[in-house]
Amino acid sequence: MKILLPDTMPLAPALPEGCEAVTVDARAEIPTEHHDAQVLVLWGPSGRHLESAVDNLADLRLVQSLSAGIDGILAAGFREDVVIAAGAGLHSRTVSEHALALLLSLLRRLPEAREAQQRHEWSTEIGGLQPLHPEGRVTTLIGAKVLIWGFGEIGQTLAPMLTALGAEVRGAARSAGTRSGYEVIAEADVLAALPEVDVLIDILPASEQTAGAVGREALAALPDHAIFVNVGRGATVDQTALREALEAGTLGSAGIDVTDPEPLPVEDPLWDAPRLLITPHGAGGRPVGADERISANVQALVDGGEVLHAASR
Amino acid sequence: MKILLPDTMPLAPALPEGCEAVTVDARAEIPTEHHDAQVLVLWGPSGRHLESAVDNLADLRLVQSLSAGIDGILAAGFREDVVIAAGAGLHSRTVSEHALALLLSLLRRLPEAREAQQRHEWSTEIGGLQPLHPEGRVTTLIGAKVLIWGFGEIGQTLAPMLTALGAEVRGAARSAGTRSGYEVIAEADVLAALPEVDVLIDILPASEQTAGAVGREALAALPDHAIFVNVGRGATVDQTALREALEAGTLGSAGIDVTDPEPLPVEDPLWDAPRLLITPHGAGGRPVGADERISANVQALVDGGEVLHAASR
Repeated sequence: MKILLPDTMPLAPALPEGCEAVTVDARAEIPTEHHDAQVLVLWGPSGRHLESAVDNLADLRLVQSLSAGIDGILAAGFREDVVIAAGAGLHSRTVSEHALALLLSLLRRLPEAREAQQRHEWSTEIGGLQPLHPEGRVTTLIGAKVLIWGFGEIGQTLAPMLTALGAEVRGAARSAGTRSGYEVIAEADVLAALPEVDVLIDILPASEQTAGAVGREALAALPDHAIFVNVGRGATVDQTALREALEAGTLGSAGIDVTDPEPLPVEDPLWDAPRLLITPHGAGGRPVGADERISANVQALVDGGEVLHAASR
Repeated sequence: MKILLPDTMPLAPALPEGCEAVTVDARAEIPTEHHDAQVLVLWGPSGRHLESAVDNLADLRLVQSLSAGIDGILAAGFREDVVIAAGAGLHSRTVSEHALALLLSLLRRLPEAREAQQRHEWSTEIGGLQPLHPEGRVTTLIGAKVLIWGFGEIGQTLAPMLTALGAEVRGAARSAGTRSGYEVIAEADVLAALPEVDVLIDILPASEQTAGAVGREALAALPDHAIFVNVGRGATVDQTALREALEAGTLGSAGIDVTDPEPLPVEDPLWDAPRLLITPHGAGGRPVGADERISANVQALVDGGEVLHAASR
């Protein structure tokens, strides 16, 4: 069984006997001598690469993406019997870390501190004795009410980190219940819950249902001191409404790693919104545990076992 | 028994029967009618306030500070039989949170991201696909080797947070051993350990022994990619050596909440050191659990029990 690995990251999966791993240029067409591959691992493929796989890999059985989001691959036109597996979970730790970095940076007002530093100013507004819970501002995770909207693997990885820091964490997902020990409310109840939320973290995937989920209504429902963090997808936010809420002071601050579109156009007014921190989609981008995932799913293919995170097609 | 509470933060400790709590101006002399107080709680007192307490509180039995560092109070001249209790532990969670904020901000290069944002630039250097462990840079706590120098209550609160994020954490203290489940090396072995350290966190108190502990030698021993965080005391760092290491590129980046002196003078060249983030001593400054600590120590005084964190005098 031939397995094509991308050259876009170092990979060395342990493979069952009889398997041969070949590294190919993920930005180019797949060379003719590898058109007999049965497994294709994808990490940052070009459109040309994907297209050449769809057109030429006649024996293909498994497409293993290392990305969490696989909408592009699902839409690429692979045969119905090809299993397409997402890299779900491979980004939970890095994306959680980034969400925490954005959130703590906003809570502790590090962007303001940096600006004061540039003016050589020891700001007594940011430092010194201060109340733990000042009126109209959230300055710590201790006692903060956090809602994680989109409570999949990333959310469930992030939640205990926030709990350890003293936050009261709930999730929101399509259906209510308890997941990983956390109360999860149904999406239909999010709007009603937002007035009590100090921190809203968006980890929603892009879909027709989630488009603009964090819009004018949701932003208005949040308290004026609330912090909004987006490490999900840019399309889940109404960016005009976000900018206007920041400008009007009806949102405390925001940190977003994703925008719509990406890159954010140079002339977009969002760049200059007050109390907004933008990072250029760098939360994930470095799969953790990719070798183990590839090994497990190739083994499942060989044994006829269950492929992890196979998409329903 | 009369207990004087400072007006510098809201306090409402539960007190044993027969105790009377009175709130006084922590910046002014203690009014004559309260010179019969037996307990004095201090939070951000002025020199005048302290002096008036030393001179006038003839019945004083306990000085309960809400600060972790009580060098100033110990030096104020209270009678030998007055118990002076530190606010140790009341700042562990907030200082840990701040240390984490500084560290994650540097790991995830948020200051650079902010500058790119100000230029309306979607920086592909910071975002997009990237290696987890690039040569010559530390970008994540996953697998990072962290040394916490000064492994008291704050260090032991911070350590599990870092572990949860994937770091390998050790402490350094006066004597080697195991504390809270963490390996602690002796201070004499720190220099030899530093070449293997990705992140050095300074939580040292100010003392003759710790003055300039993080100096030219320690900074040279750290790898060029290392991140340095100081939430201890400014005097524990040789600031000229720190600036020079950053300028020379022999230190990856640094985040400091404390300087020597404070405020940092406007003309100090440290303000402009590259890859340095300065916050104006805002890590703590908001005691958590002050009411409970006051209650416990007043009760101990009444019962003749052990006063928590009483200083040896």
